[in-house]
Amino acid sequence: MDRNRLYNNIINDRREHPERLNANFERIREVAEIVLEDKAAGIIGKCEKDIADSRTPLTEKQGNIVVDALVDKSSPGELKLLADMLHDSEISTGEAISLHEQFKIPVSHLEADIVPVRGKGAWITDTRGKTYLDMDSNYSATNLGMSNPEIALGIFNQANQLISMKEDRVHIPRARFLKTIQPMMPSGLTQFYWQNSGGEAVDKALKIAKAYTGNKGVVAMEGGFHGRTHGAVAVTHELKYRKPFFLENEDWVHFVKFNDVDAIENLFLEGKAKTVILELVQGEEAGMRPADRDFPKRLRDVCDKHGCVMIVDEIQTGFGRTAEKKDQWFASMVYDVVPDIMTIGKSFGGGYPITAVVTNKDISSAMQPGYDGSTFGGNPMAMVAALIATRQMRESDLTTNVIERSKQIMSGLNHLKDKHSIVSEIRGLGLMIAFKLPSAEAVATLQKEMAGNGVKTSLSTREWVRFLPLLVITKADVEHLLKAIDAALSTIH
Amino acid sequence: MDRNRLYNNIINDRREHPERLNANFERIREVAEIVLEDKAAGIIGKCEKDIADSRTPLTEKQGNIVVDALVDKSSPGELKLLADMLHDSEISTGEAISLHEQFKIPVSHLEADIVPVRGKGAWITDTRGKTYLDMDSNYSATNLGMSNPEIALGIFNQANQLISMKEDRVHIPRARFLKTIQPMMPSGLTQFYWQNSGGEAVDKALKIAKAYTGNKGVVAMEGGFHGRTHGAVAVTHELKYRKPFFLENEDWVHFVKFNDVDAIENLFLEGKAKTVILELVQGEEAGMRPADRDFPKRLRDVCDKHGCVMIVDEIQTGFGRTAEKKDQWFASMVYDVVPDIMTIGKSFGGGYPITAVVTNKDISSAMQPGYDGSTFGGNPMAMVAALIATRQMRESDLTTNVIERSKQIMSGLNHLKDKHSIVSEIRGLGLMIAFKLPSAEAVATLQKEMAGNGVKTSLSTREWVRFLPLLVITKADVEHLLKAIDAALSTIH
Repeated sequence: MDRNRLYNNIINDRREHPERLNANFERIREVAEIVLEDKAAGIIGKCEKDIADSRTPLTEKQGNIVVDALVDKSSPGELKLLADMLHDSEISTGEAISLHEQFKIPVSHLEADIVPVRGKGAWITDTRGKTYLDMDSNYSATNLGMSNPEIALGIFNQANQLISMKEDRVHIPRARFLKTIQPMMPSGLTQFYWQNSGGEAVDKALKIAKAYTGNKGVVAMEGGFHGRTHGAVAVTHELKYRKPFFLENEDWVHFVKFNDVDAIENLFLEGKAKTVILELVQGEEAGMRPADRDFPKRLRDVCDKHGCVMIVDEIQTGFGRTAEKKDQWFASMVYDVVPDIMTIGKSFGGGYPITAVVTNKDISSAMQPGYDGSTFGGNPMAMVAALIATRQMRESDLTTNVIERSKQIMSGLNHLKDKHSIVSEIRGLGLMIAFKLPSAEAVATLQKEMAGNGVKTSLSTREWVRFLPLLVITKADVEHLLKAIDAALSTIH
Repeated sequence: MDRNRLYNNIINDRREHPERLNANFERIREVAEIVLEDKAAGIIGKCEKDIADSRTPLTEKQGNIVVDALVDKSSPGELKLLADMLHDSEISTGEAISLHEQFKIPVSHLEADIVPVRGKGAWITDTRGKTYLDMDSNYSATNLGMSNPEIALGIFNQANQLISMKEDRVHIPRARFLKTIQPMMPSGLTQFYWQNSGGEAVDKALKIAKAYTGNKGVVAMEGGFHGRTHGAVAVTHELKYRKPFFLENEDWVHFVKFNDVDAIENLFLEGKAKTVILELVQGEEAGMRPADRDFPKRLRDVCDKHGCVMIVDEIQTGFGRTAEKKDQWFASMVYDVVPDIMTIGKSFGGGYPITAVVTNKDISSAMQPGYDGSTFGGNPMAMVAALIATRQMRESDLTTNVIERSKQIMSGLNHLKDKHSIVSEIRGLGLMIAFKLPSAEAVATLQKEMAGNGVKTSLSTREWVRFLPLLVITKADVEHLLKAIDAALSTIH
């Protein structure tokens, strides 16, 4: 039984696992050294002569040689662990990293300190069998857990039935979603245009606002981050994201200080813009800076007064991330405003890429066929994922967990701030939380120390450590987190 | 047995079908009228008093009432058909359409003539149980079939193991893909940046070219179509796609006539641009116009001479669509040129949204961390879908089928052109094929007639009928297609 399982995790049966390859020898060596320690060298030495290339997937014959050698020297417990780790990945950590380094266009920093292979709840396990509490949540994309059997089954059924359908055409999974979603949305935001990435949703929201207002001007916030397409990055404040692409002086974009209603109103009065775009908690660039309490409502009033369009980018803040009260699914609800256009994404599909522009009937009805179009927007698998993910959010009372875990983390951090003087400030809303250390170097040290204590956290903004935990994080998880922060802060002292 | 199956397709067991709802009464009435014809009225009348709202999902009690009434009056064959159709959809055609009409931002024309529910190979079945040969392939997204059990299983396994991981981080499904893909790519195009939609890939390709050349100018083609984000639509020629968004006079975009190498070289010489973007077969706006045979090579020479970047947008033409010889996976291979940057997408994931920018090491190495970033780009489910889809393309010898079916359609159309004088011109490459009728009205009539003969075709450009069949279309399918065209042309005469 164990021999078979080990063999099947080395020589893959494609009918059961079409997504896997045969294992390579480098991975077998890696796993053997972790599980069998001193015994590994002998086993590896015995097989090496039959295997020319350590990174080529093994043949069946080679697989049998390796399995025989492993079975010969391992206890049943070791055999199980070997099979488990080979199931986690049949490719070695080293090869996985070098393939990425070799073939990635380096537009972003490659994170290769750990290679995650599976997850459950807020936890991930890496190729070496180590387990970490994940504080990144893939920028809020995996809020409902690092794996999701219900979404897996729903997508499986859909891909077997009808694997895709263009945005233009009516289909059933989208109809199902539309039947169930309206109670979660801010009042009046009933109209959807589906997209696939956050940047794309922002880009299209801007297009819709421009077409509606007949004015190309858009006011955006200093410290704001909205994505990377030409349109989305143009309204993103950080200059290094725009300058290499000649997008630093777009005549239609006007940046103002976050919370500065008067500056926005002046631009409206001058006719330079009729649209404003903002996040209610600036995450990426500003380090979890919530808007001043009265800013969104004052801005809403100014937009109403001048007939201007208020776009709230809720891609990261949406679907419960910032809740202060039960069922506050969007930060707009926390601040008690209704935007004219909202962008949503990230955890919308529980991990499946789906985003959307949402607006009211007035703005929607000004659009015309031909204005836009999408191959994958609102495709059947995406709608299935969104149906199940949003239902899980409601049925698990996710916002109540956000409220409780937010309080628990904030209270714990405040204790740690008293204990460790290098923590100078804490801020955030819901489960977007940051605290300030003396320097970016201190942040890097803390993150490394925390990884040693089983917490993976990679988000930071200069001297701010940023936490964006999965929203399914448990009370015990937070206790683990706080201990790991405490231990890490102690070493930095 | 049949009663249970019927019941389970009305009152859904979420553990088996988390993607479905309970059926509504309107759907039951629709299905009963199709299957039971005259007998339906009595059954419906009997149940109606117990069901207040025909569009609310039924309760278990209501489900039992309906099932009892149906079982009472139906033969075993009828019961099976009722269950099958309720499995296809538990929502009525009318409700599905009205939900889309009610909640869609009308940026594109809603196609509601049929509502597809399942597919196999190149065929789709709609809510009314009618079956159509699909000539749209969702703009080339479902080239490998309207359903795909192998991709379904791969995604299922992945979503159960690790549902998502950000673009920045090394993961195993991406490593597997990188191990297998290189033999399919044009020589030297080894570096990948993953995206989610075609427009997004074009937008990022333009950013990369601008950053590399240090020149913001881009030459684009009249008749070209590249997508809908600010960047992608700016290089798309059709004015009505740009004007509502104030993107009709971008100073960095220079349009030239398709195939006009001299005009492009002049813009390079004047220093107005150092990048050119084009499709090798203009699909969307030009009606399947292949580039002149010598144009791409001459353009390649001009780009080399002036150190300029040639971006070929292969989102629709890629993955075998235009093959003239075995294993010509990209139109670039048909024209025997290697672009500096290529965008790929559509059928890349067999129906799962995944696209990419691909380039050479020189351009790639000029990028820097921070230049871009993506939450969903190259996510684990996407890489699983791409691994399996690209392997299916190779193992099924897909390009050979493209070559044979293209010849069969072209030859058949030429016969029909001789027979029906209203067909004035035929053109295309591989399985991108168009033929010309006297008017757009004639095209609409033809499409409607063909639907009556079991062929769904909705693509057109003015007076051109455009065919973009699935690449798995069979010889018998093409015979069916040609008969349907013949019959439809006869009625237009």
